[in-house]
Amino acid sequence: MKFMRCAADGAAVLILLLLLTTTALAGDPSGADTYTDDVSGVATATNFAWTLMAAFLVFFMQAGFAFLGAGALRVKNTVNYFTKSYMDFSIGALAFWAVGFALMFGGSQLFSGLESGNSFIGWSGWFLAGDAYDVSTIMFWMFQVVFAATAATIVAGACAERMKLQTYLIYSGIVTAVIYAIYGHWVWGGGWLSTLPYGVGVRDFAGSGVVHAVGGFVSLAAIMLLGPRIGKFGKDGKPNAIPGHDVGYIVLGTFVLFFGWFGFNAGSTLAATDLRISVVAVNTFLAGSAGAVLVCYWTFLKTKKVDIALTCNGALAGLVGITAPCAYVPTWAAVVIGLVAGLIVMYGIKFNEWVLKVDDPVGAVAVHGYNGLWGLLAVGIFADGTYGDVQGLIVGSSGQFIAQAIDVVTVVIWAFGTGFILFSILKRTIGIRVSREEEIEGLDICEHGYSAYPEFITPGPGEGLRAGQTSNSR
Amino acid sequence: MKFMRCAADGAAVLILLLLLTTTALAGDPSGADTYTDDVSGVATATNFAWTLMAAFLVFFMQAGFAFLGAGALRVKNTVNYFTKSYMDFSIGALAFWAVGFALMFGGSQLFSGLESGNSFIGWSGWFLAGDAYDVSTIMFWMFQVVFAATAATIVAGACAERMKLQTYLIYSGIVTAVIYAIYGHWVWGGGWLSTLPYGVGVRDFAGSGVVHAVGGFVSLAAIMLLGPRIGKFGKDGKPNAIPGHDVGYIVLGTFVLFFGWFGFNAGSTLAATDLRISVVAVNTFLAGSAGAVLVCYWTFLKTKKVDIALTCNGALAGLVGITAPCAYVPTWAAVVIGLVAGLIVMYGIKFNEWVLKVDDPVGAVAVHGYNGLWGLLAVGIFADGTYGDVQGLIVGSSGQFIAQAIDVVTVVIWAFGTGFILFSILKRTIGIRVSREEEIEGLDICEHGYSAYPEFITPGPGEGLRAGQTSNSR
Amino acid sequence: MKFMRCAADGAAVLILLLLLTTTALAGDPSGADTYTDDVSGVATATNFAWTLMAAFLVFFMQAGFAFLGAGALRVKNTVNYFTKSYMDFSIGALAFWAVGFALMFGGSQLFSGLESGNSFIGWSGWFLAGDAYDVSTIMFWMFQVVFAATAATIVAGACAERMKLQTYLIYSGIVTAVIYAIYGHWVWGGGWLSTLPYGVGVRDFAGSGVVHAVGGFVSLAAIMLLGPRIGKFGKDGKPNAIPGHDVGYIVLGTFVLFFGWFGFNAGSTLAATDLRISVVAVNTFLAGSAGAVLVCYWTFLKTKKVDIALTCNGALAGLVGITAPCAYVPTWAAVVIGLVAGLIVMYGIKFNEWVLKVDDPVGAVAVHGYNGLWGLLAVGIFADGTYGDVQGLIVGSSGQFIAQAIDVVTVVIWAFGTGFILFSILKRTIGIRVSREEEIEGLDICEHGYSAYPEFITPGPGEGLRAGQTSNSR
Repeated sequence: MKFMRCAADGAAVLILLLLLTTTALAGDPSGADTYTDDVSGVATATNFAWTLMAAFLVFFMQAGFAFLGAGALRVKNTVNYFTKSYMDFSIGALAFWAVGFALMFGGSQLFSGLESGNSFIGWSGWFLAGDAYDVSTIMFWMFQVVFAATAATIVAGACAERMKLQTYLIYSGIVTAVIYAIYGHWVWGGGWLSTLPYGVGVRDFAGSGVVHAVGGFVSLAAIMLLGPRIGKFGKDGKPNAIPGHDVGYIVLGTFVLFFGWFGFNAGSTLAATDLRISVVAVNTFLAGSAGAVLVCYWTFLKTKKVDIALTCNGALAGLVGITAPCAYVPTWAAVVIGLVAGLIVMYGIKFNEWVLKVDDPVGAVAVHGYNGLWGLLAVGIFADGTYGDVQGLIVGSSGQFIAQAIDVVTVVIWAFGTGFILFSILKRTIGIRVSREEEIEGLDICEHGYSAYPEFITPGPGEGLRAGQTSNSR
Repeated sequence: MKFMRCAADGAAVLILLLLLTTTALAGDPSGADTYTDDVSGVATATNFAWTLMAAFLVFFMQAGFAFLGAGALRVKNTVNYFTKSYMDFSIGALAFWAVGFALMFGGSQLFSGLESGNSFIGWSGWFLAGDAYDVSTIMFWMFQVVFAATAATIVAGACAERMKLQTYLIYSGIVTAVIYAIYGHWVWGGGWLSTLPYGVGVRDFAGSGVVHAVGGFVSLAAIMLLGPRIGKFGKDGKPNAIPGHDVGYIVLGTFVLFFGWFGFNAGSTLAATDLRISVVAVNTFLAGSAGAVLVCYWTFLKTKKVDIALTCNGALAGLVGITAPCAYVPTWAAVVIGLVAGLIVMYGIKFNEWVLKVDDPVGAVAVHGYNGLWGLLAVGIFADGTYGDVQGLIVGSSGQFIAQAIDVVTVVIWAFGTGFILFSILKRTIGIRVSREEEIEGLDICEHGYSAYPEFITPGPGEGLRAGQTSNSR
Repeated sequence: MKFMRCAADGAAVLILLLLLTTTALAGDPSGADTYTDDVSGVATATNFAWTLMAAFLVFFMQAGFAFLGAGALRVKNTVNYFTKSYMDFSIGALAFWAVGFALMFGGSQLFSGLESGNSFIGWSGWFLAGDAYDVSTIMFWMFQVVFAATAATIVAGACAERMKLQTYLIYSGIVTAVIYAIYGHWVWGGGWLSTLPYGVGVRDFAGSGVVHAVGGFVSLAAIMLLGPRIGKFGKDGKPNAIPGHDVGYIVLGTFVLFFGWFGFNAGSTLAATDLRISVVAVNTFLAGSAGAVLVCYWTFLKTKKVDIALTCNGALAGLVGITAPCAYVPTWAAVVIGLVAGLIVMYGIKFNEWVLKVDDPVGAVAVHGYNGLWGLLAVGIFADGTYGDVQGLIVGSSGQFIAQAIDVVTVVIWAFGTGFILFSILKRTIGIRVSREEEIEGLDICEHGYSAYPEFITPGPGEGLRAGQTSNSR
């Protein structure tokens, strides 16, 4: 009760504050000034429509992550994984609204209300209030928040089946509000990486680095601190396979992610009047396809079997790889980028399991982390100079490659470092891992009190599934 | 055979009639007159693209309702629920084409062919024939029909696991064609509510009232007449939990609904040239997120568990709550509206179970009914005057609140009243509930002859699942 | 290793070649020349946005086909079916990029780089290189490739549960690159069918023929050569029902397909400035609804049960039927076309099972093949002359009907003929069918080494499901 009274008081103060800041508006909350009845006005409207529709597609990727991950896990942790996947974007949306957006784009001057900030951090646009209560700023926020949510949710898969729910939710708010936002400021918010004196400065079109590498290397830090699942590594240190429970969910998740990725990449122009969107979309399609084809046949040639789940990761690897360079490269390069990404994900997973000895149930580090870096470098290699004046090695220019390499080092240090610090603090305070008993029984029962499919029998001892009590007062 | 001959005759007459009415056209069926090669023409094209894409997203919400509901029910009624969810929009589309649209928008003068009607009911635009065979009218129809389908399908969940299939299908056609359409006329078709002399008249931007409260209160009438499922209430009158069979389906359904809701709300401008669409989209996102966060932590603080299924209902509650005010309020108000919606859905479900003693398996009355009313009132409270000249209590104006309160009373009386009459008639004629034996065995076997997952064993007596005979002549 | 070295060498040569052809550009890869800051430029941007968003929706239909099919099959072949569904579009994308697009649209002069070709075949636009590295050409490619992928994937369902994976993948590349592309050239690439001297030449707006009939009749050839599944026909030659394993997947697939179909049909204008898009979308909705309603009630009147899976096929039948005529007919005709399509799919399935004695597990031949033909004819019957000057029998013109009838004959001969030749060659070389033992055990174990749901027990002997070993080094 005390907590609730406090919350109510806090809310009252906050509302008052917001009302005050909303009184003096320099923004255009209705759009009446921004929209003009001429060519430029209609162009703006077209670009709003394009960007918002793309943002909706990116939002839908949350469902893709949820199902991709859930399918790759065991039944006993399904409710828990869905909860993490669902809540991270809900909490993230509020965190990015209150704090993250201001840290990331304050000082970028991109839209009304984003005036204050320097090349390391921004500090305006809090709560989308004041001058940021503007149709353009808010359009931009809509597109950005779904990217922030993507970065956060990547970690859920890597830490699945053993991380405490509340720890995960606290982490996801902090990543969205701070870790993601500050690094994002350096690349997209007008910060120091974007203005490096090599090439045209770092270019990461739709976020191989900002979104995927950040998510991937925070994941790596988390799973190092978390340790592997019980049974993942034998006494001899060899990794064991722990099969997921629903291949259909994996395929569904991949389709949804691929679908949403068109919005992710092509929407990143923020403009349909930038007709390069067609090249972006096609490069996305080709790289995703090439990644899947490579993994499918590489494993087939070696094992005479086709592993569709790994093939889906190949598709995602290609998509991550093309995310930074999608606007800068010709279509053949997209195919090459996708093929290389397929190799990286396969050998990246092996490297993680056999060399680093870490347990990443969905391959998030290899898919998003390693291929995020590959995407950043690919800009420096394959950019053909037809767009944004970005020129890579293939057209004889090495400056861009240097900028991208600096970004690669930066993102690894930042994401792994801050992730390590954050999870270390969480580990020493509230703890990051469920108890051994809870892990064996499954997180669904201990953290939620019910299982995902209570009417279906599940075999084997220790699986811990009961005809669960869902709070079906729904 | 006789039935089929009659149907054939009827069809022949109808076609002749339509051909006749189509001969004299005042509409523009090709778009060649509506599209002009200037700024205004391109603006029209942009708005067509925006509205149609939004309509497609809203269409997809049908899948969301289907999976949300199916997941919350038991295996033995899965085929039945999917059938209801699927057929209601199919029947609804034909009913709204033939009748509903004319009742709802006749007299609104909004587009060609919608000339006749008064402030209580419309009567032109039947079958989209005659002057309504016009690209603009038909664009508008596309957006409206998916809303009508949404209102109808809400009832499926409330009445699930016991209502006869054919009764449900008859009901859904009537609601779409008549009950929904007439009330919709009052608010969106230029009817008496929209012109009330308080504030600017009732404003319900995307249908908290028109769609959700109508669906919710028809549901309440239906479940009162239908009675609870066997086993829902103990001998002492206490409600029992009846777990659903697939948490994954619940989460999938919620994601799909959330995704489609962006089209539902932001598309309701019918125009991308109305740049307020960005604020609408962001308010939608924030309210949905806030609803989920509130329910997640409220239940966690009380029970130390997180109930993801109830949390999904919290998200939907926030979305329903923001549907009417989405265009009129600032972002902080969207968060407040979502938080309150989360409380309403939790206590609304308790109220239904413990006070009204009705059985609503998916919580449709609380999610759509009670929060639909909350959304209507929220317009009168939080509208900040920046859009459409709608001013709520927070800017010191009480007129709008009065209009919204009148609408709240009206929609409850209309939807509950007509729903009660309709289901009473159906109860006394064809019956509304399956037999006790059929309910225990499950509706899948008795109404469809097969079960949803014939290869999976389901435990327990009375579950009634057999390796079903699907008519797989597919 | 040798294979890989060869592949690497080939890749190096190819890249060099592409680099060379990319040097001399007549195309506009950045869009800077294509976009002009005036009405025409904004119209182009609007049309790019429209077409690309529609293409994304069509892409998502791949998920629809995957789930529709998987739900209608048995658990033991689920991984295999998902693999076929997933890989066909991945391989198809690369094949259409390299070869198919050039064969299909070379000589059409529609966009930059498509200059060379005659009325039988095209030969420019390979690899989207040279002049085809142009934002407009690439926008067009994006829309076309998702259509090609649709045609290919139709066959997966018909051949499911017995066709070898590698055979299927080889077939799908060839269909996309050659069979689909050449016929497509005749209708959409400026080829001889489009210029027939009857009516305005063949018109197939969104591909009832080009996509669906091609897929359907290649399927028919394939299943004739493949033979029925073990147990499909009794010793007396009577067909047996083989129930699918997940009705939810069937419904999900249908919803996703219906959703994507709006992009499929309405996107086929390639322009939002063509306001007829609204009529196209509404006709699509009405025909799909009418098909479902007809099948639902027809079966209900005969059996007192509602078969939702067959009803879903009714919806798809209506959608296939309206695909060619969607732009040319009034809304009432869309309803009639959908109702007839519902009849065709029901009796088409019976015809296949009882007369042709072929085994088509998902009804692909009836849904896509027979209704594809119906769609082509429907243009000649119901086109009302309001759009594109296409006039059917209902406005007293018979020329168009003759053109469409010629197309019907052509597509059957081409698709069935080339499909028969292709699968005959495959049968005599690498073989098209798995062994009897593998079929009984299920293709998942033998071709993939794991099953779709390893934690769920599946009953019965011969089902062959084990707690599969997924290569979960993911």
